[in-house]
Amino acid sequence: MRESRQQVGQDTAVEFYFDFLSPFGWIGAERIGAIARRFGRRVVWRPFLLKATVRDAMGLPPPLETPLKGAYLRRDIPRSLRLHGLSLSPQARFGFSSVDAARAVIWVRDRSGDALTEALVLSLYRAHWSQARDISERTTILDVAEPLGLGRDDLAAALADPQVKDALRRETERAIRNGVFGSPTIAVEDELFWGSDRLGMVETWLKTGGW
Amino acid sequence: MRESRQQVGQDTAVEFYFDFLSPFGWIGAERIGAIARRFGRRVVWRPFLLKATVRDAMGLPPPLETPLKGAYLRRDIPRSLRLHGLSLSPQARFGFSSVDAARAVIWVRDRSGDALTEALVLSLYRAHWSQARDISERTTILDVAEPLGLGRDDLAAALADPQVKDALRRETERAIRNGVFGSPTIAVEDELFWGSDRLGMVETWLKTGGW
Repeated sequence: MRESRQQVGQDTAVEFYFDFLSPFGWIGAERIGAIARRFGRRVVWRPFLLKATVRDAMGLPPPLETPLKGAYLRRDIPRSLRLHGLSLSPQARFGFSSVDAARAVIWVRDRSGDALTEALVLSLYRAHWSQARDISERTTILDVAEPLGLGRDDLAAALADPQVKDALRRETERAIRNGVFGSPTIAVEDELFWGSDRLGMVETWLKTGGW
Repeated sequence: MRESRQQVGQDTAVEFYFDFLSPFGWIGAERIGAIARRFGRRVVWRPFLLKATVRDAMGLPPPLETPLKGAYLRRDIPRSLRLHGLSLSPQARFGFSSVDAARAVIWVRDRSGDALTEALVLSLYRAHWSQARDISERTTILDVAEPLGLGRDDLAAALADPQVKDALRRETERAIRNGVFGSPTIAVEDELFWGSDRLGMVETWLKTGGW
């Protein structure tokens, strides 16, 4: 038996590991905030680079370029998004560079509150996948962030800041060190749940403290 | 919009693709019968060889030997089984040859009814993963099948029959041709659902005829 929810402590965070590259990360991002709040938890938003886990650490090809799995995913992604009320733009770009979008999130997370971080994550996800605004472009990121009150000049400077670049590198190394390899992965204490399909399991874990 | 459940026809089968190698296939096998019956569907049990899809068709290493994913799975498998009320024996063997067990299922399926096939699938899964009886051994398969009324001599002859061997080869080729690569995969008409995590989605699809 694991320790009960009471023993775990209500203020412990749920960590949400994701890469904007992953539409399944979008499903998770849309839902994790409400799930965590229901159990008195905050969410720590942890962008990382899937290429570093899938290609470099695991030695695998990109899932969309993997025989059989690629064809399955091309059909499953729009279907899974639809089931969660999210619509995929036919023009949305796959396999883009999510590096700057990830840096933007880390910069906001480390200097602002959870609410603004969550709003930025969701705005970037929706812009890219639902509105086909390519968030590999810095100007798109600035356009998406501006209505949230994030100044263009400050954010542009942050995206070019070597310390912010380092922070993303460290986040990715930390993800790998903690066993994370796919997006989304939710960590509840040291228990990892990989995949948007596992949000129900995350809820059960938060409710029961484990089984 | 897809055609509604009424138009689909109540007697269409749900196909359940699996490999005894996969403990997630066990979770699916325990649940798919009840789900299908709730919607007036039969289950067609379709064993195939994961090695032929993962290694040969996809060019990937076995999941348990993949960096990061292997460690995740070793923790996730017992946890996922426990959540479904299934217990993994600490002595259960991973990475065994499931060829003969798959042949036994095909032989029974092609000459007997759905009920006996389902009973054999579940008995073999439980024997291997819960009781650590190694079903790569022909004698274990005969021991497991005998209480179901399957004669040892008949089944032993079937396992050595070139026609039964061919049938498994054809099943695996058919699975790959239909886009199946993981265990379990459930096919509802031409819609594939990969993973035991997707059983809820299968239910919704059966109920609504698609979304």
